[in-house]
Amino acid sequence: MAAMASLYLKTSNPHSHSFPRLPKTHFTPPLNLSFRRQPTPRTRSATRISASLIDPDGGKLVELFVQESEKDSKLKQALNLPKIRLSRIDLQWVHVLSEGWASPLKGFMRESEFLQTLHFNSLRLENGSVVNMSVPIVLAIDDGQKNRLGSFTSVALVDDKDDVVAILNDIEIYKHNKEERTARTWGTIAPGLPYVEEAITPAGNWLVGGDLEVINPVQYEDGLDRFRLSPTQLREEFQRRNADAVFAFQLRNPVHNGHALLMTDTRRRLLEMGYQNPVLLLHPLGGYTKADDVPLSWRMKQHEKVLEDGVLDPETTVVSIFPSPMH
Amino acid sequence: MAAMASLYLKTSNPHSHSFPRLPKTHFTPPLNLSFRRQPTPRTRSATRISASLIDPDGGKLVELFVQESEKDSKLKQALNLPKIRLSRIDLQWVHVLSEGWASPLKGFMRESEFLQTLHFNSLRLENGSVVNMSVPIVLAIDDGQKNRLGSFTSVALVDDKDDVVAILNDIEIYKHNKEERTARTWGTIAPGLPYVEEAITPAGNWLVGGDLEVINPVQYEDGLDRFRLSPTQLREEFQRRNADAVFAFQLRNPVHNGHALLMTDTRRRLLEMGYQNPVLLLHPLGGYTKADDVPLSWRMKQHEKVLEDGVLDPETTVVSIFPSPMH
Repeated sequence: MAAMASLYLKTSNPHSHSFPRLPKTHFTPPLNLSFRRQPTPRTRSATRISASLIDPDGGKLVELFVQESEKDSKLKQALNLPKIRLSRIDLQWVHVLSEGWASPLKGFMRESEFLQTLHFNSLRLENGSVVNMSVPIVLAIDDGQKNRLGSFTSVALVDDKDDVVAILNDIEIYKHNKEERTARTWGTIAPGLPYVEEAITPAGNWLVGGDLEVINPVQYEDGLDRFRLSPTQLREEFQRRNADAVFAFQLRNPVHNGHALLMTDTRRRLLEMGYQNPVLLLHPLGGYTKADDVPLSWRMKQHEKVLEDGVLDPETTVVSIFPSPMH
Repeated sequence: MAAMASLYLKTSNPHSHSFPRLPKTHFTPPLNLSFRRQPTPRTRSATRISASLIDPDGGKLVELFVQESEKDSKLKQALNLPKIRLSRIDLQWVHVLSEGWASPLKGFMRESEFLQTLHFNSLRLENGSVVNMSVPIVLAIDDGQKNRLGSFTSVALVDDKDDVVAILNDIEIYKHNKEERTARTWGTIAPGLPYVEEAITPAGNWLVGGDLEVINPVQYEDGLDRFRLSPTQLREEFQRRNADAVFAFQLRNPVHNGHALLMTDTRRRLLEMGYQNPVLLLHPLGGYTKADDVPLSWRMKQHEKVLEDGVLDPETTVVSIFPSPMH
């Protein structure tokens, strides 16, 4: 599975173009994602007037790291709190949340966010606006862990070596209705859904939400950490390259010819639309994938080769690892 | 099961009041329904300045009846179209749609509306606004019916005596994924869900959406048709009574003491908030209910008795049948 999305920059230079034909309906359906961010062209002139990155969902990119100067005191605080040991997938979600991939979320979902995600695939923000949120990002605990939390309002999150990763503050514990979660997320409860069997069925019967403060950023030490650019780093990279449009291709497989055609064709269409420097983000999934998927290290080698061979142009392509698990 | 909702009228006289405490969240959750329609008080004065009914969802109350003068020609047209015989529940949905209870829907859902309902519990309108739509209102057909429709773009809908009820225009046929529909609507596919067993499991594998033109309004001839006020008639009744707030109680059971307390207490709170003439809509479900539910005719007798005995005040209560099936 792979996903194609274009995140256009705010710019006034693209020529006007026609939208793809929409299905007949009483109402206008949500626009095709590829075109959602396309600004209304104000002028047909090809003169470049301005270009800046689009806003993150919620208006501000969330980053959840404690400041260097506070690390020691936060660590001391964490050592006096009850602990939750994170699974590999939990840790990947901490990574996703901490760098703002799930902006405007500031931690694992509380019940209100969880229910909005299940029922509306969206979150309503304080200003009344609505942002897309189709995947529940939640932390499951079992009865024993719930009891150990007692009346604490914060909890330390630790890795498999019991090293402190983060503190979850102002926590809220609520029921983990696994069947409902599965039914509403996938539209089926048939056996064989990989994420369900890996991360939901064996998980605890409670969820704990709260605000995340990350003390030790997640590192993998697999030789690929330098490819793990955060949203902030990616935004800097796109600006450094003077991109006036960014289109992203997220995948958990080697690039095949169909993928390559989609990417080169999208670039061609963006140029036709008047963009002058579209940049491709090739965004392999770095988190949990299916047992029979090609491992990340091999996929990265394959992606490198695709650029070396000129199937994709290294000058206009950024390869970076998306830390999310498959869902 | 019963549902309580207050549909406040636009008025500037209510005193300010405090909202119920909301659960802690990163974001503001959708407000408690009872208070959603509450206008911001502009003045603390108790002087009545204006009062008018709130707008229907989508801005305009939908009514889908053909004009008297067109009935003959539409009937002639219908007789030359392929036919779909409606089940009792289908007919109840035609009733719901035709009077605008499901405004802004103009007919059985096409696929885009069906999917928006399943995934977002909402519909996005042409002007970008979003209205609540949590129940799929769809018409199922089987393979044989689908084949008989061939390349027709309209179809006649007939009742169990083969009398024409309506025409469905500009039709769209799409897959009826029953498991996904059930999972996303109820969050479970456990056996025993009454509506699923009555109207989904035995239904055809296709859905047909389109614009509805009702030629012969649905009548039941059960002696209760005079209690079946349409939204338009109800709005007239509320205006005739000079209501400055309307609160509705929908139920499919006899009124019991808990219900009565909810209703009288809501009235008390509305008066405290500064409304001067709150009117209660007691709104028994008229469509399909569970096999072991009390039949409508008996429930209506019970509701009458409740008003006779003064448990609810006839002066400030409108009893009317909501034609929808239980879902």
